[in-house]
Amino acid sequence: MGRSIVEELEPLFNPKSVAVIGATNNWNKWGYSTFTSALDGFRGPVYPVNNKESEVLGHKAYVRVTDIPGPVDLAVFVIPAPNVAEVMEDCVAKGVKAGVIITAGFAETGEEGKKLQDEVLRIARKGGIRFIGPNCMGFWSASSELRAFMFPLPVKDGPLAFVSQGGNVGGAVVTSGYMRGVGFHRYVSCGCAADIQIEDYIEYFGDDPQVKVILAYIEGLVDGGRFLEKVKKVTPKKPVIVLKPGKTEAGAKAIVSHSGALAGSDEAYEAAFKSIGVTRVESPEELLDIAIGFITQPLPRGRNVAILTPGGSYGVLCAEACATEGLNVVKLPDKVITALDKVFPPRWSHGNPVDPAGDRNFITFLTAPVKLLRVDEVDSLIFMGFGGFSIFASLFLSADTGYAEGVASWVPSREQFRELAISFTRAVSLKDTAEIGKAIRPVVAGVSVIMGLYNEEEVDELTHLVASAIASGRLNAPMLISAFLPPGSAALAEMGIQNPPTTHEAITRFLVALAEQWVEDCKKPVLTTTFFEQDQPRLQGSHYAYPSGKQAAKVLVKMVEYKEYLETVGAFKK
Amino acid sequence: MGRSIVEELEPLFNPKSVAVIGATNNWNKWGYSTFTSALDGFRGPVYPVNNKESEVLGHKAYVRVTDIPGPVDLAVFVIPAPNVAEVMEDCVAKGVKAGVIITAGFAETGEEGKKLQDEVLRIARKGGIRFIGPNCMGFWSASSELRAFMFPLPVKDGPLAFVSQGGNVGGAVVTSGYMRGVGFHRYVSCGCAADIQIEDYIEYFGDDPQVKVILAYIEGLVDGGRFLEKVKKVTPKKPVIVLKPGKTEAGAKAIVSHSGALAGSDEAYEAAFKSIGVTRVESPEELLDIAIGFITQPLPRGRNVAILTPGGSYGVLCAEACATEGLNVVKLPDKVITALDKVFPPRWSHGNPVDPAGDRNFITFLTAPVKLLRVDEVDSLIFMGFGGFSIFASLFLSADTGYAEGVASWVPSREQFRELAISFTRAVSLKDTAEIGKAIRPVVAGVSVIMGLYNEEEVDELTHLVASAIASGRLNAPMLISAFLPPGSAALAEMGIQNPPTTHEAITRFLVALAEQWVEDCKKPVLTTTFFEQDQPRLQGSHYAYPSGKQAAKVLVKMVEYKEYLETVGAFKK
Repeated sequence: MGRSIVEELEPLFNPKSVAVIGATNNWNKWGYSTFTSALDGFRGPVYPVNNKESEVLGHKAYVRVTDIPGPVDLAVFVIPAPNVAEVMEDCVAKGVKAGVIITAGFAETGEEGKKLQDEVLRIARKGGIRFIGPNCMGFWSASSELRAFMFPLPVKDGPLAFVSQGGNVGGAVVTSGYMRGVGFHRYVSCGCAADIQIEDYIEYFGDDPQVKVILAYIEGLVDGGRFLEKVKKVTPKKPVIVLKPGKTEAGAKAIVSHSGALAGSDEAYEAAFKSIGVTRVESPEELLDIAIGFITQPLPRGRNVAILTPGGSYGVLCAEACATEGLNVVKLPDKVITALDKVFPPRWSHGNPVDPAGDRNFITFLTAPVKLLRVDEVDSLIFMGFGGFSIFASLFLSADTGYAEGVASWVPSREQFRELAISFTRAVSLKDTAEIGKAIRPVVAGVSVIMGLYNEEEVDELTHLVASAIASGRLNAPMLISAFLPPGSAALAEMGIQNPPTTHEAITRFLVALAEQWVEDCKKPVLTTTFFEQDQPRLQGSHYAYPSGKQAAKVLVKMVEYKEYLETVGAFKK
Repeated sequence: MGRSIVEELEPLFNPKSVAVIGATNNWNKWGYSTFTSALDGFRGPVYPVNNKESEVLGHKAYVRVTDIPGPVDLAVFVIPAPNVAEVMEDCVAKGVKAGVIITAGFAETGEEGKKLQDEVLRIARKGGIRFIGPNCMGFWSASSELRAFMFPLPVKDGPLAFVSQGGNVGGAVVTSGYMRGVGFHRYVSCGCAADIQIEDYIEYFGDDPQVKVILAYIEGLVDGGRFLEKVKKVTPKKPVIVLKPGKTEAGAKAIVSHSGALAGSDEAYEAAFKSIGVTRVESPEELLDIAIGFITQPLPRGRNVAILTPGGSYGVLCAEACATEGLNVVKLPDKVITALDKVFPPRWSHGNPVDPAGDRNFITFLTAPVKLLRVDEVDSLIFMGFGGFSIFASLFLSADTGYAEGVASWVPSREQFRELAISFTRAVSLKDTAEIGKAIRPVVAGVSVIMGLYNEEEVDELTHLVASAIASGRLNAPMLISAFLPPGSAALAEMGIQNPPTTHEAITRFLVALAEQWVEDCKKPVLTTTFFEQDQPRLQGSHYAYPSGKQAAKVLVKMVEYKEYLETVGAFKK
């Protein structure tokens, strides 16, 4: 064809105008929801094409594509299968450049359908039209804010790109991603993939600097060799994560009746994916879990993991999960044990997982990660108890307003608070870690005294960490402090904060900032876990707390494997 | 001892009065949160015991337990380990009957701690005091509404009982259960289990008619033989679900440093559990998933499963998960294929999974379960697409208010609506399926016409199903209809409904009622799935929608295994 895939697919992902063929006022047809979806966000004209209705939802409708006055870049087909070929001829005549055929009833239904599909493909090829589908749910392109979907799906822009051979699985992943707070730059439900193949999308996503991680749901490939050839050029640049069912006979049978694809030998797929550095996962949730790992964390250098946990049984299950997944719950060197011995109560676990065994002193719990990450033997850290049911939250919950009162007690007068606030604000504005450290040290020291344990070195360490997080902009210090001040207090007014976060929100933001700072300072992954089913976990800043140690372990091991692949092909950059 | 375990543990789970030893006004100590937790809900007196504070949170405090004027049934210990033995002597002198020792620093810390623990045990035994712990997070007893926890945990009464050798894992499971809408009649964090053993709790729960399913998190057993002996008498009565880590060396090591327990040979545990019908699971989430299966569904007769899915790729992943877990995605007999051929579009999957391939007609989707469940070859059904991202919801979403207008269109006048409402209300009050059927048939027929497909038999079938759900009280018909009427409409006023549910809520309640009715009519399990990460799934009525086909498959296979065990020991009741 001569042209690169980027040139080929440009009009598909960045059309200037769209025609929806089959758009209708009848809310009981897919043409209705497809048209409303296409209208939602896209900035260029969206023309309804309908040979019976003269206007659709207030937009002038056209009997044929060729009747449309302006140019049409993209045609969306939501008409019965037998009519698609004829309309495709019109599209060629009109000079349409790209299409998406939502209509089902082609190759997936058998021989007759296959003939129909081949005819559509022949016409499109003749006119240089590249198209998605048929038998798909449509696609999303963030750069044109185009939702060419069969029905509305919540989706936002982000660092992922996704091609799915299943519309339902695809829609569920996109929607789940939206709920987790992670977006997609592109999402394609590729359906029968008569024209553009899965590997074409992956190649295209591979060339797009906006895309950081590529996801794919694959039921079967038309040309495995072509897939290997194309995708092995992408994996050295960015991770490609694939969900591919068909290991079981029941799964393989279901694939045939769904997409008409041949599942193929699972062993062959497994070996092929491995040979080109594709990350294979087992569920739609894992597609997102692992993608989020890649976009939020540096690659681990190796398999040695340290676990820090506020609860022993959490640690047990996490250690078990790490070992099961193929990570090494590393034996900590004596120097770390000695260092932790100085700050933890005598009953602490004295090993990995590191468990202070119900110690209430969270200052030492927050300085421990750096002690662990600084050790050569540790490649990554799983920091547990991030969520509502954890040592921090439970401390605050159990103390009601006790801690807040405690913190407030050493900022007694408005005058003193003003002085503190002024020096604090000045220090923050300097973005100088040392200056900020000087300003916040009294606060950290104060909390330490309240905790009933005062250790000069620990206070210094935490001060430095928090100061770094403030200096880097990760931590909004006034916002954090405001959560601990009584509502309507003079101090709050002084700071100009009207809606302070709840204590729980403030703790979460604080932990997120520290976790990001650990990663930044030590250049190693820090995966946090809530170990608890709570409200939908969400990406916050560049951090995401996994609901269990098991998920964190799965993410880490896939990242290690990808790093090992990059090394074997000489593509690993430190 | 002579007395039965029920008699022995009665004062523990149903105390008339409680003393919290170590209760304090200092919010920075566990004695503070333990005392506030014990005060929350318990109806008898809760006495603070503190040798330095004369009152705690407004309650008169006592220097020693023996100073308390009234009788004390239960003592909660939150004092340093070295002081526990002495106070236990006091408890014996006072005639205390049961205890819970939250304090850590006993056997789990080594030889010294073990001696301390043995001494406490010796004293308690002498005085006939049975106790939980030490080194635990406390316990919950719904019958006394007693939250003897180290810090507040959300928990409500329900059909589960749970003993956990890990306080954090235990607390996380209880809290997750609360969020899923499932309660616990008892929950014990058993800690080091110096006195009452895990098998004692299980035996006790086994005798309690309020408890339907027993859960346990076990790190290691002191006397495996005793466990087998006791628990094998419980499993024929109710399911016992166990999470037992220690398969890996890393897990086993973490166990030793956490609870001091020896993990033991995993093969031995696996075989032992199997031999006595214990259901073993792999994660805290599975404890709840499978418990919910047991409390909401009948036991499946066998491994043959049918899958009904609104999306092909959903079906593929579910079939794969079923086969992987050991279920049989059964080949459907010709008569079912023929029956479905009559109602589904020609492109439907023609096999199991049953996938109508994007058919918009949801009447046939809702009559299909009975067609499948009535077949001898089918032992259970997985009904997919229950949640927000499913064919139903997406239809309604994409149509905006279209469907509501459609439904409203054949109830045009207030007079007609009144007539319909009167005959409807009369029919519902009769609780007679045939009468209700007559009244609602026009509604079902109307929807069928709107869907663009009218089939007399299908309308009859759905009418019968819905009428049964109304007659049995599962479905609140006026509430359902109200969701489709315009807000503030005369019809709503006529029905006396002020806050109609949203369309989404109404659809969910409708589906829940139908799913319950399928189970009731066919006496086979129907597990529903949302296939989608959405808001925390919750138990509704006797139904729970799992987030994926994988989870549904895991639940079904564990239920089949339990049923097979009951058969081998002659305890299966049809």
